[in-house]
Amino acid sequence: MKKLLVFGVGLIGGSLALALKAAQTGWHVTGIGRTGDSLQEALALGIIDEAASDLAAALKDADIVMIATPVAQIAPILQRIAPYLEDKTVITDAGSTKADIAEQAQNILGKAASRFVPGHPIAGAEKSGPAAAQANLYQNRNVVLTPGEQTDPAALNAVRELWLSTGAIVREMSASSHDTIFAAVSHLPHLLAFALVDELAARPDANQFFEFAASGFRDFTRIAGSSPEMWRDISLANRTALLQELDHYQAALSGLREILEQGDSTGLQALFERASHARNDWARQQASASWKN
Amino acid sequence: MKKLLVFGVGLIGGSLALALKAAQTGWHVTGIGRTGDSLQEALALGIIDEAASDLAAALKDADIVMIATPVAQIAPILQRIAPYLEDKTVITDAGSTKADIAEQAQNILGKAASRFVPGHPIAGAEKSGPAAAQANLYQNRNVVLTPGEQTDPAALNAVRELWLSTGAIVREMSASSHDTIFAAVSHLPHLLAFALVDELAARPDANQFFEFAASGFRDFTRIAGSSPEMWRDISLANRTALLQELDHYQAALSGLREILEQGDSTGLQALFERASHARNDWARQQASASWKN
Repeated sequence: MKKLLVFGVGLIGGSLALALKAAQTGWHVTGIGRTGDSLQEALALGIIDEAASDLAAALKDADIVMIATPVAQIAPILQRIAPYLEDKTVITDAGSTKADIAEQAQNILGKAASRFVPGHPIAGAEKSGPAAAQANLYQNRNVVLTPGEQTDPAALNAVRELWLSTGAIVREMSASSHDTIFAAVSHLPHLLAFALVDELAARPDANQFFEFAASGFRDFTRIAGSSPEMWRDISLANRTALLQELDHYQAALSGLREILEQGDSTGLQALFERASHARNDWARQQASASWKN
Repeated sequence: MKKLLVFGVGLIGGSLALALKAAQTGWHVTGIGRTGDSLQEALALGIIDEAASDLAAALKDADIVMIATPVAQIAPILQRIAPYLEDKTVITDAGSTKADIAEQAQNILGKAASRFVPGHPIAGAEKSGPAAAQANLYQNRNVVLTPGEQTDPAALNAVRELWLSTGAIVREMSASSHDTIFAAVSHLPHLLAFALVDELAARPDANQFFEFAASGFRDFTRIAGSSPEMWRDISLANRTALLQELDHYQAALSGLREILEQGDSTGLQALFERASHARNDWARQQASASWKN
């Protein structure tokens, strides 16, 4: 029986465990953590086979260690597990940023870093906790793996197989490509939404503004309701790529401002048309992809 | 029988007509326009009582003229109806910007401008056309009226009563307050979303980015799929307020950039927390308001 050890048995880790169970892959899943509440809940919900708190015992014979915690907890966990890692144990994570985590793993794990496979399942995080976990969360969803030059091909293969058995589509790219892409399509939009709401909320007459905000505002700012701690950590972890994307965006916005200030009707319409076509094409592709599921 | 003449029998004008019918207010509603397709559809759907194309005849004895067309068509329509307006006829509109329209009405209508009551029903515009019209669209929704000093109180009252009978909540404020508020909570978010999608779409490797965009991106950019012509016109019509809001936003974004560049963890978390509390408080208030419906 293959042994999987999971740090973080919430939506991400819990759904992985449930998916492995549903696919009858024969994995024995042990949840591990210092606070017992989530572990006991995950055990009661049948998400994990076992709850552990003793690191040395839990890591014995482990085939894969999955770290599915918030980004900021990954390095401390790597530090705690490093002394007990066996030669066969493969380590992976589910963090939203990759270059920083790969670098931390390199520093912390030393030689064992070749068996660390950075990963990022692209799955919604609107709900959290073990109760939100579902066996089909990864069905036809992208999971990005970012192996480096030093990554052991067998370790990469083990993590790839793990995710494939959940029904996910596994994609591989460099950590820096990953960080640039997600800075642009995820982290930057979060920053933009946070900034908009904070700017409005700081006004003395903020209520008057919020009172007339409607469905466009609601959808645009939904991500501004996300966890402040989580996004602080992601922003800091992906700071380099995020600052670059922010600069691209501010330049684009200044260009749009210029067109608007000049009252350039043709220029405005051209920009809005390009954006609207691109957005609607993307939505159609998304819809046809989810229809295929 | 009171006579209402409606330019634009799509979602906004059509829903007004249906709401008046449902409330058994005794209004006789005539739709008017140059292209017959929408009028015939509105007539077939029972939205309007009559379809007209002869302006002079249609305006005879009209109590209220409602201009529920895109913003850019309002001034040309005012010009066309001006010669036929009777002393008793009240004119109103449903455009998303107000100061520019009030000024145009002043210039075009002259003395009759005292009977022009600028209005803006805050109702979703995701669907359009007569088929999208619904009798309950305005139920508990805000309708903003922006009378000026010169506005005839009787005219204001007539338009207020018209909207109240649809179940709407009628709010009054100055045209410039209106334009500032909607620049901030509606027009600016549209510009921000258009700019983000356009900037990404212009990249040579745009597909790689769009491919990994998920639900956060989907909601944030939904409004970037809106009508380019409509938003070109709104942006130009509300240019002054919109440029001001854009400047506030760019300053806020530069502040956030600074915090991020310095790796100021406390500052980032504080900003994200303020935004997330404000956004979630707003969503709770919205939910409790719609629960009361």
